Amino acid sequence: MRTGIATVCLSGTLKEKMQACAIAGFDGIEIFEQDLVTSPVTPEDVRKMAADLGLTLDLYQPFRDFDSVSEDLLSANLRRAEAKFRLMARLGMDTILVCSNVATASIDSDDLRAEQLGRLAALAGDHGVKVAYEALAWGKYVSDYEHAHRLVEAVDHPNLGTCLDSFHILSRNWDTAPIEAFSPEKIFFVQVADAPKLSMDVLSWSRHYRVFPGEGQFELAKFMGHIVRAGYSGPVSLEIFNDVFRQSDVERTAVDGMRSLIWLEEQSAKWLDANAPVLAGAGGQGAAGAPGTQAPARRRYPMELATLPQVAEPAGYNFAEVRAADTKGLETVLGQLGFEFNGRHRTKDVQLWTMGHARVIVNEAAPGSGDSAADASPAIAAAIGALGFDVHSPVIASARAQQLKAPAVPRKSQANEEVFQGFAAPDSTEVFLCQGSPDGTAAWTSEFGDGLEKPAAGAAAKIDHVNLAQPWQHFDEAVLFYTSALALAPQPFAEVPSPTGLVRSQVMVTDDRSVRLVLNLAPLTQQDGSGAGQRTTYQEHIAFAVRDLVATARDCRARGLEFLQIPANYYEDLDARFGLAPEFLATLQELNLLYDRDADGEFLHFYTATVGSVFFEMVERRGAYDGYGAPNAPVRHAVQYDLLHRLNPVPTK
Amino acid sequence: MRTGIATVCLSGTLKEKMQACAIAGFDGIEIFEQDLVTSPVTPEDVRKMAADLGLTLDLYQPFRDFDSVSEDLLSANLRRAEAKFRLMARLGMDTILVCSNVATASIDSDDLRAEQLGRLAALAGDHGVKVAYEALAWGKYVSDYEHAHRLVEAVDHPNLGTCLDSFHILSRNWDTAPIEAFSPEKIFFVQVADAPKLSMDVLSWSRHYRVFPGEGQFELAKFMGHIVRAGYSGPVSLEIFNDVFRQSDVERTAVDGMRSLIWLEEQSAKWLDANAPVLAGAGGQGAAGAPGTQAPARRRYPMELATLPQVAEPAGYNFAEVRAADTKGLETVLGQLGFEFNGRHRTKDVQLWTMGHARVIVNEAAPGSGDSAADASPAIAAAIGALGFDVHSPVIASARAQQLKAPAVPRKSQANEEVFQGFAAPDSTEVFLCQGSPDGTAAWTSEFGDGLEKPAAGAAAKIDHVNLAQPWQHFDEAVLFYTSALALAPQPFAEVPSPTGLVRSQVMVTDDRSVRLVLNLAPLTQQDGSGAGQRTTYQEHIAFAVRDLVATARDCRARGLEFLQIPANYYEDLDARFGLAPEFLATLQELNLLYDRDADGEFLHFYTATVGSVFFEMVERRGAYDGYGAPNAPVRHAVQYDLLHRLNPVPTK
Repeated sequence: MRTGIATVCLSGTLKEKMQACAIAGFDGIEIFEQDLVTSPVTPEDVRKMAADLGLTLDLYQPFRDFDSVSEDLLSANLRRAEAKFRLMARLGMDTILVCSNVATASIDSDDLRAEQLGRLAALAGDHGVKVAYEALAWGKYVSDYEHAHRLVEAVDHPNLGTCLDSFHILSRNWDTAPIEAFSPEKIFFVQVADAPKLSMDVLSWSRHYRVFPGEGQFELAKFMGHIVRAGYSGPVSLEIFNDVFRQSDVERTAVDGMRSLIWLEEQSAKWLDANAPVLAGAGGQGAAGAPGTQAPARRRYPMELATLPQVAEPAGYNFAEVRAADTKGLETVLGQLGFEFNGRHRTKDVQLWTMGHARVIVNEAAPGSGDSAADASPAIAAAIGALGFDVHSPVIASARAQQLKAPAVPRKSQANEEVFQGFAAPDSTEVFLCQGSPDGTAAWTSEFGDGLEKPAAGAAAKIDHVNLAQPWQHFDEAVLFYTSALALAPQPFAEVPSPTGLVRSQVMVTDDRSVRLVLNLAPLTQQDGSGAGQRTTYQEHIAFAVRDLVATARDCRARGLEFLQIPANYYEDLDARFGLAPEFLATLQELNLLYDRDADGEFLHFYTATVGSVFFEMVERRGAYDGYGAPNAPVRHAVQYDLLHRLNPVPTK
Repeated sequence: MRTGIATVCLSGTLKEKMQACAIAGFDGIEIFEQDLVTSPVTPEDVRKMAADLGLTLDLYQPFRDFDSVSEDLLSANLRRAEAKFRLMARLGMDTILVCSNVATASIDSDDLRAEQLGRLAALAGDHGVKVAYEALAWGKYVSDYEHAHRLVEAVDHPNLGTCLDSFHILSRNWDTAPIEAFSPEKIFFVQVADAPKLSMDVLSWSRHYRVFPGEGQFELAKFMGHIVRAGYSGPVSLEIFNDVFRQSDVERTAVDGMRSLIWLEEQSAKWLDANAPVLAGAGGQGAAGAPGTQAPARRRYPMELATLPQVAEPAGYNFAEVRAADTKGLETVLGQLGFEFNGRHRTKDVQLWTMGHARVIVNEAAPGSGDSAADASPAIAAAIGALGFDVHSPVIASARAQQLKAPAVPRKSQANEEVFQGFAAPDSTEVFLCQGSPDGTAAWTSEFGDGLEKPAAGAAAKIDHVNLAQPWQHFDEAVLFYTSALALAPQPFAEVPSPTGLVRSQVMVTDDRSVRLVLNLAPLTQQDGSGAGQRTTYQEHIAFAVRDLVATARDCRARGLEFLQIPANYYEDLDARFGLAPEFLATLQELNLLYDRDADGEFLHFYTATVGSVFFEMVERRGAYDGYGAPNAPVRHAVQYDLLHRLNPVPTK
């Protein structure tokens, strides 16, 4: 699959954008007109720069408001088009995007449109230019891709074809199956964009909320499958208008986009396999046939789709690593929670703490020591630095992550020590791929202490979920990273009120819930963006599941654990909402436990005080409860805010 | 008018919110349940705190999903309600908001609803509680305020009334006139919220985009007018769900809200005057009658509406002040633009530069000297510090601004020096109210140099517009500030692409365009929110209008002015778009002039290089052109970014 990206997706100057696209590995780019118009680089130098960078210039865009106009306006439009055709010759480009008219269309006649597009095609032919006509979702008369295609067929000129843009098609819920019947010679270009499903006017949705494939909710693999089956083999190019991407680091965003196309390519191949037409003699089994059945020979299409090393979803958390310059506070809390100290590592400055199958590595690396990119803020005294996931084959999972351009984390190790393959997630958390074992133990623990994993207290305990605070620029990127590299699935996102604003919360899970990862986007605070820059709620945590939370809480209290103190008002409201048994309610209140209930089951949990920017949670899931106590999150935020605020009052202006 | 605000409008803890409301001067507050549930303060202490702060506790809210349910669910709901009624007794509160059911409603019967609301009213009566029933715009069966009112009438219980919320009514475009026929005894509460007109689902619109009255596009004065005419005299309370308000400084936001109610009170009184019913003997003239006609005696309503000192829109800019620690660069540019140095001030470290009626004060106060709140960032070497506006009566305008809680700027002055009344705008720009003179001169200029305003070059020159960069937290607040205190009118806002993201641009004008002020919300950059904190596009400027821009540009060039260099690609595109005469196009390109044209006229302009964070623009308006060359703004942003980026490369990670 030939990959492309429109320059409008990225921040910076045209030159910076082109360099970032080359570094990210795109085959070609679309030149968004405004990026050229505002650039001091001449068309000739853009052409040369592209050649030097190994980028093809695939599409000049957009040319707006051409069709369905009066003869006067048409003449002006043809003159305008000819100026662009001449410019394209200097750029060495041969394809231009012409959108269906939004603003100046005044005559609704397909005959007239065909005639006008025919004249444009003839003029384009004179200049060796191909016109890719696209139905905008909000086009005045032409808003449906099949309508645009009918016009192209009616004109029947070799220099006129259509451009298929997933956003304009899927935002309107048009059926994509008819694409298969299109002649491949008439599909001049394909643009892909994903988007969250929002109910708002389609123009605003398109201009601000598009995201890279895999970061939204459109059925893009199916869209691509129909295009592949139609016989199209040209570029598949990203055209994403996104407020955040336009603001954030150009090279990061370009890599994020490239990752999305690599992932989409794989998903498209899978869709084609799963929806393969029944071939005579293939036994009537699609690729979705019974396990062990040989997949039918894949039908070949002009577009070749590369695949990635296949991985199953992870089987669980292998460990979580917390870093701090001074680890005293962490050690105290872990001990009070019931974790056992399993010793120090043979060669590294790290400690192992375990409770059942929950393993926490305490890394004594001083933040800012250059050991990791994670310690961006000197204010963070302790932070989650790494997560280990149990995967079936770390080598294959690692190869997959590398092909998805996940930045590798180098890991020094001595002889006989287990080497984990590691990658940096978009928020700089290091993600390690570990070999899971059927009994839930981990071989590497023998590198600690006396070499024997100690019989741990709370044998049923495990990591229930991890909650990571995400920087605003990399939230969508993180969703795609965990989706594509680790096969986690995003759940519908929630918004949780906090004293400093709404916290956007995105849960990523495996199908069996053995891994639950929560990505939290903390609101910008008053200080952000004005230079002072300390987040008041930029906290993250690790939650451990136990069998009996009440007993665990009593044990923790006996060991002196500092619980997050839950207000009495909360328990009154809880009682009003659920009508709990008085003794149970009293127990909850006595132990600072929080409670939630839904149709599937019950949830009990408590939080520790915060150490640095990390705190811990203990949870008990009853029945098939699948949530995270979201109704209680505002209480947690408020109490944490109150504590932090008393410690670090905001200076008055 | 009794003023109120719901705690959900604000950031922080319940205690912080209540204190901010008291400081801002609200009469009462609505307790948003979550703020109480998450608070460590007991209900009794909330009651005491409110009494100490002089705040009444007007409404407990919300109570959700009560009506239209099965008998089982109703029993649970009544139990839940009774728990809240008991809580309200401890808070000393008597009114609760009950919203129409969204989630659990399953039976669509008005008879059943009336019966269920009747049982709730009876229970409320037992506890001395009044139930204010509100139709949510997205209620499952009840979404129309008249429907809610009909149910209240049907129940006819003294403890059941309705709550009218402007958002739920105006978002659905319901006619507000029928409110006048409501019995005032049945209107238990009134909530006001404004909002920009967006096409999106009404729930998301409501939860994220509400703004304070005067910051959106709803016809709130009319809404209030009908309520006043109905005879309602209870609290008028803000209920604003806004993502930014929830994130920003609680005291600032509370004052912004209070200002919006003061302004709304005035606008409501004006609407009532302008729409006064024709009274027998009053001559048939409304308040909108011929000038000089005596306004008819205002009809009296139970709600008394205070008015503010009246001001007309300003007649023009009196001056603009630029501050810098080192003023050399500014002096050079002003001289090259054709400004004359009119000397230094008698007693202050400021210089006066004039060209025609355009006056620029260069303030040599070092940023960070504590002289002003404007110099928040030490990186800003030169910045716009103050604007002077010509008003009819500075004393009256100042009294109005003070009543609108604009923070006064103290101004030291010696004997015989003119004293300006000054206020700090939300972005800390100081706004001064000056006495305009019919011939466009300014008396205070005699305090400079030899005491005589010099015959200035370019006599026709004046300040055309000023463009101020706004911090993200105070954008809506700024719109209301200039609307209410200075009678500027917001125009529809635009979004301009720049290399670091979309710039939101809000034009504020007087009706005759003698004052044009542009508020620009620069996008957060990669650095913001991660601690480093330097904006790359946080620039602002002053634009001067001249009669002949080509001649002016030639003069400036002869004086050595450094123009912002416009790329050749821009002129090619200009030619493609407008088909300009070759000589004219050549002149534009030779002089780095930008060009725009619309149905009303033409616009020529050029920009200077940036000094500190300030640059200047020269414009020529031809015909009735009313814009600002918006199509050219991306070019300006790109070239400025390119320059700044070359000077201050972003460190690579």
